[in-house]
Formats: sequence, structure tokens, C-alpha cells
Amino acid sequence: MVGSVEIEVIPSELNGKHEQLPEEIDPESVLIVNENGGNENGGNGNKGMVLGRNIHTSCLAVTEPDVDDEVTGDREAHMASVLARYRKSLLERTKHHLGYPYNLDFDYGALGQLQHFSINNLGDPFIESNYGVHSRQFEVGVLDWFARLWELEKDEYWGYITNCGTEGNLHGILVGREVYPDGILYASRESHYSVFKAARMYRMECVKVDTLVSGEIDCIDFKSKLQLNKDKPAIINVNIGTTVKGAVDDLDLVIKTLEETGFHDRFYIHCDGALFGLMMPFVKRAPKVSFKKPIGSVSVSGHKFVGCPMPCGVQITRLEHINALSRNVEYLASRDATIMGSRNGHAPIFLWYTLNRKGYKGFQKEVQKCLRNAHYLKDRLQAEGIGAMLNELSSTVVFERPQDEEFVRRWQLACQGNIAHVVVMPNITIEKLDDFLEELVEKRSTWFQDGKTQKPCIAADVGTEFCVCALHK
Amino acid sequence: MVGSVEIEVIPSELNGKHEQLPEEIDPESVLIVNENGGNENGGNGNKGMVLGRNIHTSCLAVTEPDVDDEVTGDREAHMASVLARYRKSLLERTKHHLGYPYNLDFDYGALGQLQHFSINNLGDPFIESNYGVHSRQFEVGVLDWFARLWELEKDEYWGYITNCGTEGNLHGILVGREVYPDGILYASRESHYSVFKAARMYRMECVKVDTLVSGEIDCIDFKSKLQLNKDKPAIINVNIGTTVKGAVDDLDLVIKTLEETGFHDRFYIHCDGALFGLMMPFVKRAPKVSFKKPIGSVSVSGHKFVGCPMPCGVQITRLEHINALSRNVEYLASRDATIMGSRNGHAPIFLWYTLNRKGYKGFQKEVQKCLRNAHYLKDRLQAEGIGAMLNELSSTVVFERPQDEEFVRRWQLACQGNIAHVVVMPNITIEKLDDFLEELVEKRSTWFQDGKTQKPCIAADVGTEFCVCALHK
Repeated sequence: MVGSVEIEVIPSELNGKHEQLPEEIDPESVLIVNENGGNENGGNGNKGMVLGRNIHTSCLAVTEPDVDDEVTGDREAHMASVLARYRKSLLERTKHHLGYPYNLDFDYGALGQLQHFSINNLGDPFIESNYGVHSRQFEVGVLDWFARLWELEKDEYWGYITNCGTEGNLHGILVGREVYPDGILYASRESHYSVFKAARMYRMECVKVDTLVSGEIDCIDFKSKLQLNKDKPAIINVNIGTTVKGAVDDLDLVIKTLEETGFHDRFYIHCDGALFGLMMPFVKRAPKVSFKKPIGSVSVSGHKFVGCPMPCGVQITRLEHINALSRNVEYLASRDATIMGSRNGHAPIFLWYTLNRKGYKGFQKEVQKCLRNAHYLKDRLQAEGIGAMLNELSSTVVFERPQDEEFVRRWQLACQGNIAHVVVMPNITIEKLDDFLEELVEKRSTWFQDGKTQKPCIAADVGTEFCVCALHK
Repeated sequence: MVGSVEIEVIPSELNGKHEQLPEEIDPESVLIVNENGGNENGGNGNKGMVLGRNIHTSCLAVTEPDVDDEVTGDREAHMASVLARYRKSLLERTKHHLGYPYNLDFDYGALGQLQHFSINNLGDPFIESNYGVHSRQFEVGVLDWFARLWELEKDEYWGYITNCGTEGNLHGILVGREVYPDGILYASRESHYSVFKAARMYRMECVKVDTLVSGEIDCIDFKSKLQLNKDKPAIINVNIGTTVKGAVDDLDLVIKTLEETGFHDRFYIHCDGALFGLMMPFVKRAPKVSFKKPIGSVSVSGHKFVGCPMPCGVQITRLEHINALSRNVEYLASRDATIMGSRNGHAPIFLWYTLNRKGYKGFQKEVQKCLRNAHYLKDRLQAEGIGAMLNELSSTVVFERPQDEEFVRRWQLACQGNIAHVVVMPNITIEKLDDFLEELVEKRSTWFQDGKTQKPCIAADVGTEFCVCALHK
């Protein structure tokens, strides 16, 4: 069979493709995704929304070694140069990053020695499988820490380190569905898209609930939608920090609404704590996420506030629910109630390392710094006449979407409609915010010069009080 | 809120728990999982099947730093010693590993520099999102290589690097379900458990098909089950190497059976190539996995034959199918047709690095070595009077389950019922096999001394010709 595969041979010298750094964007290669999910190449004025390049135009092809590569060392040298250039671009991209809730400031040098091992926590974290190269002892240490944070006893919780926040949501909602097979999933419109993806994957009926202008779930609308479906149990996704505005759903009010509507013992609450589930415990006066309340599961991302080289997350649920989901898999000599089966064994060690080094006190300090810096950014934006909003319990600053997509891409801002946001993480310093503000103000002075382009109205997104468009200022 | 969380303070000196190496197993801590999925502690004679320890008895607790830790350096020193001990245990466990299909022999030293970055390939691999710290250029290079291997044109395929083989199966089966919403899932009994997990998650009707004694799907049974469900489309999981016996389903016969039964344009085939999907292209006379045949998707694991510090996989499907699954997510400025959303950006670089270094020729050499060594092991086992079987296209040697669970755990053998297996990977040398055989023969001489214990009969698992029990020898 070998030989029947056509091999694209690229000369050992650089072929130009490898030179591209992220800043150099060929407009012809920009992909636009249209409303129907199809895609087409380029140009402006398209009603589609995607700005990214089509990576096929700049990918790093895998090439077959030359016969004499081992002798000449050409291949090793070429690969080393590709990696060095890539590293340089990562440094630059890491420096100019504001839009995603990832703490890019970490030092795991002490863990470099572990990269030589294929560490895999197959199946259940609490039950060792026959595969010995695992890190369950670290994983369970981390899980214990989170169970303590969310007030669930050691012998009453079950959980695992996931690959990302999405896996946590997929797991929490699946547990809910297994507990209430005919339950309806309720989630606010501003929930993360993975929640609606779960509903589609799991073939669940899903009801979207309206939000307040802050981004929180609107419990009046929630109540009326519950009343329309009184015959079926309710599975609710509660956002502990929405993706776009960082809004925290009022968990107590959600529970009260369920009880008032007669859903006393017929509901399951999954808390999507993606970013803020780990910050809120350290914010004074913030409502509490706790298993002393009638919630079923909480998930949080590990690569966000903690910071980690790869995406990961923590999922905690009640042990009693897991039997609904688990099954025996003798092959692994392990019960498998996870979504993934084979699981990254490095991520738990990264988390364990950071939790041990920083501790509660360290996180508290960082959370306070983030909130302080987020207020600084919001105040500076408003002082410059830019519409901006910051939810009380959040470090996500929402503001007018910059009119220059190149600028958006340079600072890696996340955008939706007329708004963009910066998520102030521990690695976002005042100096970085000042650089950003200076550049924004300078660029912005050119956007509205022609008299035709209007300042975007963000009243519908954040409320009239935070909008400074022609109509609302 | 801080302070309300009880913190378990462990003295800075080692508290004993940290001393445990995997070899030291406290029988009191061994967990047995019973048939109902519940678990209970210990002892022998239980009909449950799990051998693993309950990790809670030996986990590495996260502790709060002391006030003076930064001054004394005690914490850093303690953590360094924990990690050094852990590294030592990983070395030992990696050395004595035979049962899982993981190539533990890799050297990614050149990539250590990248561990400082939070690399995340959010959403679609082909469309850049606004998050700039990604490795899509490597990912797409790897995907192109696999699409070429399985004969699908660049502009006709879609795929991504997954977190593991399970994610590939979850994706392939989901695509199948989206293409045929009322399709029935067919999979042989010896398919990986993730296939049946998918059916449950996705609320699909699932029909288990019998297997031949080799572990291959029995197409006579398949045909009769298809005939019972002629009104509904068929979604079929085809195993390119089953988990336990390494059996390769006959793809051509599966297709022929579908056509003969009248399912001409009403089927979707997902090929689960977990381990062998990457080995088979290099085995002479092996049937070919190719998109020139009417298949919908192929998945393969990256941490198995290639070798990778963390689990990962490759998923390739037809671009035309993806529109059925995809949706717009403006937040990421990316279409999301993946299961996970946030995706590990390091894994693609590991794969890219190995593919570039080894090339087709390198893999071919390694595959040949594995098959040769597998034959060596099978022959030696049989020569010692131990029932053993090796499928023609496989490097998975199936043999009588050792009677000593300590021995099973020491060599990390995967077991099911009366059989165990060794998967001969590139890191399994003749020397290692000799060590294993020597120890097995020595231990074995004591197992049947009492005259009561019988050699296990493995005829039902592998056929009478390979069984040497009292009845069949």
C-alpha cells in the first residue's frame, strides 16, 4: 500500500509558506462563513462574519524525509527553524492578547521533565485502571480542592478533570438528562454555545430564556416558560459568568422560581462556571455557588483563571447521580462515567501545581487585581467617550466594537454584533491596558472622520446608560 | 467567602501519603466494582472485576501555603520532591508496560519550549479564530497527511485533531446521525465501548452484531439484522482493529452486505481505526481503508502508534457532511463542527513533529518490527504451553489471563474474562518480551501446583485451535 499515497515533496529550503507570521494576512485567503454555515472566500462587504484566514493557504505541510536526511541533518535544522519562528510568533501573539479569558501567565518549568511520559488517566479518576502511567493521585487532590470550594463532602462527590469547559457542560447536562430522561433543558440566550450543542447532541427539548440587559437570566421569562411545561422536569443551565458579558445568573432566584412554580423535586441545575466559577468565591458579597443548595453539578475551566498550556476543566457532581450514567468496562478495569475515556494526565498536574503554589490567598489577590484593572479599563474607555460596561461581579469589560478588523485581530478581541470585550486576566497589567487604550484612541480618531460612519449603538447590548452613540449620549 | 472553606493543612514534612509508589498496594484500599455499577471496598472472592486502588486513599492533597513559605522555600522543596518521586514511578511504570496500545517511546525534547504557551485551536481547524495563540498551521498539515493516506482530496475533506479515539467515534457517529436522523447504529459486540456510549448519549437505536471467533464482525448476522430493519437507514461502526483482539472488520464485505440487502444509498460507515488505522496502510495485503470506498469518516488515535505525551486523535470526514453538523458561533469568529470547541494546540505539534521525522518509510519499518515481535511473542507463549492467538493483521497477542492479579498489574495487562493481551508497540523490544516471558513462566509454574486450579479455557474467546486447557489441548 505504501507508494500508492502521493507525497507532496517540498524542497528542504524554506518555501516561503513557512515565513508567514500571524500578522501577515493575505486578504484573498480570508474565509467568510455565511449564515447557512457554508463558507466562501473573501472580500469585504459580505454579510458573513468570520475574519479568519483559511489555514489551508498557510499550513505547514508534513513532508517525507529525504534519503540522506539523517546524514546531512538538513531536516532537523529545518524543523528547528520552523519551531523557532513559531515560538517567536507565539510570543508576539501572547503579548497582544486581551479578548479571551485565558490567563497566559504561568511558569511550569518544573514540570517539563514530565513531557517524556504518555500520561493517561483512562476512565474513572477514583479507580485505578491497569494502565500505570497515570496521574490520578494529582487529579483527585485537585478534585478534592474544588469539592471543598463548592462545599460537597469527599464521600458525596464525583468528578474529573475534563478537556475543556465544553466537556464540563456536556457532562453536566448529560447527567441531568439521565436523572430526568424527559426533562426540558432551559438556558438563557446568552449561555455558551456548547449548551445548545448539548441539547442537539442529546436530542433534548430546549427552551431559550430571555436575558436582562446585563446578560443575566430573566427569571420572569423563566417562570412563564416553566409554567408552559409543568408536566416535564426542568434541567437548567445556570451561568456563573456568561461568555460575552461576564454576567452571573442569580442562582438563588432561579431556585426560588423553580420552587414557586411547583418544580420542588423535579429539577436539575448545572452551573456553567467556565471562567467565573473560580473567581467568584473570592469576590466579596458575590452569591455563593454551593452544593448546600439544590444544584447537581458545577464545571469550571482550568486554562482560564488558573492558566494551563492546554485547555482543561474541572467537573464536580453528586456521586449519587453518577450511577445513572456509569457502566462497567472491564477492558479498563474501570468504571467509565466520563465523556472521553482516555484523558490527558498532564492537565491535572498543572492544576495541582498552581493550586499548591498559589493557594486560596494567592487566588484572592489575583482576583482582586483583575477586578481593579477591569474597573480601570472601563473608566478609561468611558473617559475617552467610548461606550463601555462592566458587570458588578465581573472582569469582562464590554465596549463598542472597533471599526477596524485588523485592530480587532491584533488585540485578539472577541466580538459579537456591535460589541467587543476584553477579559481582564492576571496577565493583563495596567501597562498593557495603557498600550491598548493608546492605540485604540489613536486608531479611533480616524474611523469617524468621514462623517458617514456612525458610532455603533450598543444600547440593545448593554443598556442605554452605557451607550454613547448619537442617539443615546 | 474566603475562610468559609475549610482548608486541610498538612505539615510541610511528608505525611507518608506522598511516599506511596504504585507498587505498594494496600489491599484494604482496593475497590471492586460490582455488576450494578456501584462500588465497595475490597477483599478477594468478590464477583466484581476491578483491581484498582481507590485513589482517595493515596491522593496528593492540595494544601494552603504557609505564611513564610516564600521565605523558607519549604514549599518549593516539598513540591520538587513530590515531583521527583512521581517521575521515578513513571519511569518504572513506563518500563513495565505491555497491555495498552500506546507507543511510549518518543522524544519531544525540541518541543519543550512550547510548554510556556497556552495554545488553543478553538473551533474549526481551517478557519482562524480571533484567538491568535493557536497551532492550526501544524494541525492542518497533519490532517492533510492523513487525508492523503486515506485518499480524500484536500478540498473534499474536513477533520480535526481530537482529544482521543473516543472523541473521534463520538464525532463520526454524530455525523452519521445528522446525515440519517432516523438511522440505526450497527456495531459488532467487540467494538470499543465508546460506540455504545455514543448510542446512549445520542439516543440512537443500536443493534449489536455478532462476531466471528477472530473478533471480526459476522456479516451473516449483520445481514439478517439489516433485513429486520430495512425501513431505516444504517449507520455502521467498522473496527479497524478491535480493542481486545485487534481484529479488523472486513470493510469490503460490510459494504457488499449493505448493497446486497438493498441499502445502496442509505448507509453511513464510520471506521474506528483507533490503533490499527495507522498501522494497516503499511501491512502488505491488508484491506485498504480509503474514501474511494463509500465510507463517511475515519478516526485514529494519535497517542497509540505515533506516541504522544497526552491522548489525542485524528478525525477525517467528508466536507459535504459537515454542513449537517455545523453552526455559526460569532463569538469565536469560527464555525464549530467539533465536539469540544476549545482544543489542545500542543497535540497537533507533537504529531506534526513525529510525522515529519519518521515519514511513511519510518512508520513502515516500525510496523514491520511490531508484527515481527508480536509473532515472536505468540510463538514463545505457545512453545511454553500457554494458549495464545494472534490475528493475521494485528500486533495484539491474546493469551490465557494470568492467575495472579499482582502480575497483571505489574505488567499492566488489559484483561477480559479468561483472556489477557499484550499489544506490541514500537517501544516493546525482544528483550522486554523475554523479561516478561521469563517472569510469566516462573510465576505460572506455581499457579496450577495445587491441582485444584485449572488452566483457563479460552476456546470461546479465540477458538479451540488456540486453547490448551484440559479439554482442548
